[in-house]
Amino acid sequence: MYLPLWVINPNSNAAVTAGIDSALGPLRMAGGPPINCLTLTEGPAAVQSQQDLAQVTPMLGRLISEHQANAGAFVIGCFSDPALALLREISRRPVFGIGECAVLDALSRGQRFGVIAMQGSVLGRHLRTYGAMGVLQRFAGERAVELSMTQLADPHATLQRMLQVGRQLRDDDQADVLIMGCAGMAAYRQALERELHVPVIEPCQAAAAMALGRILLNGEGA
Amino acid sequence: MYLPLWVINPNSNAAVTAGIDSALGPLRMAGGPPINCLTLTEGPAAVQSQQDLAQVTPMLGRLISEHQANAGAFVIGCFSDPALALLREISRRPVFGIGECAVLDALSRGQRFGVIAMQGSVLGRHLRTYGAMGVLQRFAGERAVELSMTQLADPHATLQRMLQVGRQLRDDDQADVLIMGCAGMAAYRQALERELHVPVIEPCQAAAAMALGRILLNGEGA
Amino acid sequence: MYLPLWVINPNSNAAVTAGIDSALGPLRMAGGPPINCLTLTEGPAAVQSQQDLAQVTPMLGRLISEHQANAGAFVIGCFSDPALALLREISRRPVFGIGECAVLDALSRGQRFGVIAMQGSVLGRHLRTYGAMGVLQRFAGERAVELSMTQLADPHATLQRMLQVGRQLRDDDQADVLIMGCAGMAAYRQALERELHVPVIEPCQAAAAMALGRILLNGEGA
Amino acid sequence: MYLPLWVINPNSNAAVTAGIDSALGPLRMAGGPPINCLTLTEGPAAVQSQQDLAQVTPMLGRLISEHQANAGAFVIGCFSDPALALLREISRRPVFGIGECAVLDALSRGQRFGVIAMQGSVLGRHLRTYGAMGVLQRFAGERAVELSMTQLADPHATLQRMLQVGRQLRDDDQADVLIMGCAGMAAYRQALERELHVPVIEPCQAAAAMALGRILLNGEGA
Amino acid sequence: MYLPLWVINPNSNAAVTAGIDSALGPLRMAGGPPINCLTLTEGPAAVQSQQDLAQVTPMLGRLISEHQANAGAFVIGCFSDPALALLREISRRPVFGIGECAVLDALSRGQRFGVIAMQGSVLGRHLRTYGAMGVLQRFAGERAVELSMTQLADPHATLQRMLQVGRQLRDDDQADVLIMGCAGMAAYRQALERELHVPVIEPCQAAAAMALGRILLNGEGA
Amino acid sequence: MYLPLWVINPNSNAAVTAGIDSALGPLRMAGGPPINCLTLTEGPAAVQSQQDLAQVTPMLGRLISEHQANAGAFVIGCFSDPALALLREISRRPVFGIGECAVLDALSRGQRFGVIAMQGSVLGRHLRTYGAMGVLQRFAGERAVELSMTQLADPHATLQRMLQVGRQLRDDDQADVLIMGCAGMAAYRQALERELHVPVIEPCQAAAAMALGRILLNGEGA
Repeated sequence: MYLPLWVINPNSNAAVTAGIDSALGPLRMAGGPPINCLTLTEGPAAVQSQQDLAQVTPMLGRLISEHQANAGAFVIGCFSDPALALLREISRRPVFGIGECAVLDALSRGQRFGVIAMQGSVLGRHLRTYGAMGVLQRFAGERAVELSMTQLADPHATLQRMLQVGRQLRDDDQADVLIMGCAGMAAYRQALERELHVPVIEPCQAAAAMALGRILLNGEGA
Repeated sequence: MYLPLWVINPNSNAAVTAGIDSALGPLRMAGGPPINCLTLTEGPAAVQSQQDLAQVTPMLGRLISEHQANAGAFVIGCFSDPALALLREISRRPVFGIGECAVLDALSRGQRFGVIAMQGSVLGRHLRTYGAMGVLQRFAGERAVELSMTQLADPHATLQRMLQVGRQLRDDDQADVLIMGCAGMAAYRQALERELHVPVIEPCQAAAAMALGRILLNGEGA
Repeated sequence: MYLPLWVINPNSNAAVTAGIDSALGPLRMAGGPPINCLTLTEGPAAVQSQQDLAQVTPMLGRLISEHQANAGAFVIGCFSDPALALLREISRRPVFGIGECAVLDALSRGQRFGVIAMQGSVLGRHLRTYGAMGVLQRFAGERAVELSMTQLADPHATLQRMLQVGRQLRDDDQADVLIMGCAGMAAYRQALERELHVPVIEPCQAAAAMALGRILLNGEGA
Repeated sequence: MYLPLWVINPNSNAAVTAGIDSALGPLRMAGGPPINCLTLTEGPAAVQSQQDLAQVTPMLGRLISEHQANAGAFVIGCFSDPALALLREISRRPVFGIGECAVLDALSRGQRFGVIAMQGSVLGRHLRTYGAMGVLQRFAGERAVELSMTQLADPHATLQRMLQVGRQLRDDDQADVLIMGCAGMAAYRQALERELHVPVIEPCQAAAAMALGRILLNGEGA
Repeated sequence: MYLPLWVINPNSNAAVTAGIDSALGPLRMAGGPPINCLTLTEGPAAVQSQQDLAQVTPMLGRLISEHQANAGAFVIGCFSDPALALLREISRRPVFGIGECAVLDALSRGQRFGVIAMQGSVLGRHLRTYGAMGVLQRFAGERAVELSMTQLADPHATLQRMLQVGRQLRDDDQADVLIMGCAGMAAYRQALERELHVPVIEPCQAAAAMALGRILLNGEGA
Repeated sequence: MYLPLWVINPNSNAAVTAGIDSALGPLRMAGGPPINCLTLTEGPAAVQSQQDLAQVTPMLGRLISEHQANAGAFVIGCFSDPALALLREISRRPVFGIGECAVLDALSRGQRFGVIAMQGSVLGRHLRTYGAMGVLQRFAGERAVELSMTQLADPHATLQRMLQVGRQLRDDDQADVLIMGCAGMAAYRQALERELHVPVIEPCQAAAAMALGRILLNGEGA
């Protein structure tokens, strides 16, 4: 019997949570740790600005405090890894950020990683994170799809734009592995990989896989 | 007539604010921008943990929002630069973190900077910041004084310990410029510099000097 | 039904394989992928020199070719990651090196990793690997236990020496996460972690956990 | 009463000195340190080649020796920071190079700095400087306007070309802060910033602001 | 009397060996060390894949063992430096890889090196080597000619394509020194340099020159 | 018939020139380029400070201008590479600095280089050079012998001190190749290498060997 992995979507969009939940299906095993996805219902509609990050910080702290007695590990399902250092300080259980995990996974699958971001405005923040991680030597580039809400509602248009950005990262920036820089887009992963012929990493999957391993190993000798 | 520089001590310790205020005396000029120091009275007694940083984040946001109509610039007087990215996003005025400014100042005064920290437990956080800044090639080392409150109350003991750590940074780690990794210790700066024969940077002074220049230049053409 | 994970010990020492097999126990689940450990019986008694690495290269190539029809993934159980680029080229299944995986795992558990190596003579080779991975900004140091075969036969002496080296990495080199730079020593992991109060990573566990996640995710949509 | 800041234009072009002098107007305060600009009348018409740099080196040494009894600090007004290490060795007063200061200022205003250079032929020299400073992780790119003397005499053509290069740095190289890689062009700074919507740094202003702070703080306790 | 330098072409293509031999003519002196070129007749037609590298490894080991009694030094004439660490371990004589030597030579001739590669598929491998060498700060880019065997048989077409790629490296990637990323193409070196106006390095020449110096100096005091 | 290599000792100490001349004996071949050593008789007794470097700069410029009609290449025999960028600009012949060449040679002989310096006061300058070269990832450390003139006159005492510093670099800093950070000490090279069991590089030899190869290759096709 394993304690569950909690995957927290820090925005209030239940459709995103559902997309994450569906993406994690392959990591669920009969005899393995349960994987539960949570929506931060009091959170903002999306977590993009520094204000959004600041807003969800205390909420995530409370959520983790409430759940940690019944948790094997936590995954925070936003590519900007909100409150990661804080949550690691207050939690008795391992906490994973999907941004950090996606990058670490990419380092094992190619030599130069490219990031398909939602918005260009977050580049500075992401670069600070890659710099803090010390992995900029492996960074090929980050380019944003810059899609409007209307466009995002059209799966075909969204995929075409992601393919376009992915091709630029692969051909112009010489990335040989791509990261989807956003949660909740897992439905496009296989199509991207099939068309672009390079590995494409969905960050929630990367983080949940890493968390799963940690839960299993933390049971060592128990 | 210049708008004032606000220097915010994010802990509730008024003695620290007084120490900062005194340290900034040399930057006050008859015809120059006023420099006002503020205590975050609702803040914690000290800002050390990630929880402390999270706690002061919304408070600093409110404080800056309230003061920015009458502000030339802001300095956040804690070496961990709490909420810096957030405050830069929400403020119409420049915001400076004393940690970042101290490092930038050090880069102009020596080739390898060493940091006299209060506690070793913050090393990981500081290293992430130096990595995000991309300056680790210039980093000689960081060592902590690890003084108890009782010891900190004894200026002689405090200075002796800071000198001991400073000598290790200079002699073992080959630092040729030192940074005091904490606000409110400016009273020791000159003694450290005189004994150690390398430049010693007090971070509030470094940040306020940089902010002062920005205020003056932002008045350009006005 | 999952295809198994094959963990290959590239030396001929069956006791090492048994140690690896035991260390991977926590990663075995009733409903999960089988984990099979193999000894390269034709390999050398230990893989240390470049000649050892060259000797096992074609053997590993053949072994992987033979097993890949019935494999979900492979782990090569030697910290020097012998033949890793070759095996990734010839295998239709993911191949993981325990050195690379241990470092990636360490990047999520601390800010500066230290490596407890068996021998100092391999430092140059390991540094080339860390450099190729682009992670030297996170490297605290590597120190070798330099134990004789006789000493290694004495678990108490071995642990004491590992603790001594671990303390140097933690206290002198400021590592906040340690990697055991050798396969087959998993029995010491928990004691090291308990005494040293920093995370200690056993590389076969780190690699097998990562491989397990890849197997599960590669079944996505199947 | 403060000792003055001396800003030295190391070429013999008095119009450049006048441009620098005008750019520093906002840093002059009734109660603050005087700022005096000097032309190196015996210097070359422009400082571009290594020969130019070598030629001005002893001249700058003499000038600083003559003025240091009545100096609070010195700024050398050429982006290649001629003789900077020498002048710091011989001067009892702080010496600032506008290239170094502009880069340090940029590090506090964006995550990736781009440089609008006059000529492409100096790129190698500038890269050595950025490398010696250890800041290449923050470097977005450097592109040259390559304007002839005739073109430089036409302010409109000059601005258009600077805007064109600035857009390439911002859009193609993902710079989020720009540095004008030449002294004496301050008149274009505000127009560049207004059109390009990223901070634009004039290096003489950046250096003089930093020097001003140092003069004030060096008076500490006096 | 000097022991000879052996330059080993690790593929079985005697025309490539002849090209190398011809390129080394200028390094042969009446009174200097003989330079002998060898074809690895049992090797593959070309060394491109990891399998090719693995195949030639034991062959190179045997060849060096056989010749070292009568060798001043060895050069391995393939840009991927096959088996370099192994050969250095087993040889009593210095062993040079043309890839490593070409990069070191480039570091003395420009600030940013560009590589004209044969195939894009080797970029990851080359980047790991540059990373292991710690020289990525000096790396401008690598671009592949991607010529078919038919095209390579046409010297004019080959040169035109190399010029095209060289111009991209120089103009788009700002390389100021170029490396030919392949052995046996020395006949194009002078034409490339004449047209592109930047130094162009032929890697076998770079390595043989370095080896020659080592042979001479190793005779010191003899 | 080759044009000679000129090796210039930029200080006025003829004994140093004699030491350099003797060290280059092994590079002289009957049929090879002549190697001529020159003393800068008008130079200072030693080149240590920035003032010394500035003083010799125009002298070296004149010397090279005078000799380049009859020169194959130049080597500047001071570890600080005085005027290197200038001399490369004004000379039609290749110019080598012994500091740069020693580091490049070291990169082919070990993974981490250590430097035995004469004085600790030059560390900042050397670090700027290593940073400009982009090789700090390979830098183990630099330690100074700090010997007085009296001590330097005693070969036994000098060797013992160099061995002491070399052992610290090898054992504490984990250097696996050492560079003698000064010209004119070649007489100690072999003893250091024999005692320390790591390669020890004499910088004049490294530079002259590199220059020799360049002269031979520049005759290509002539």
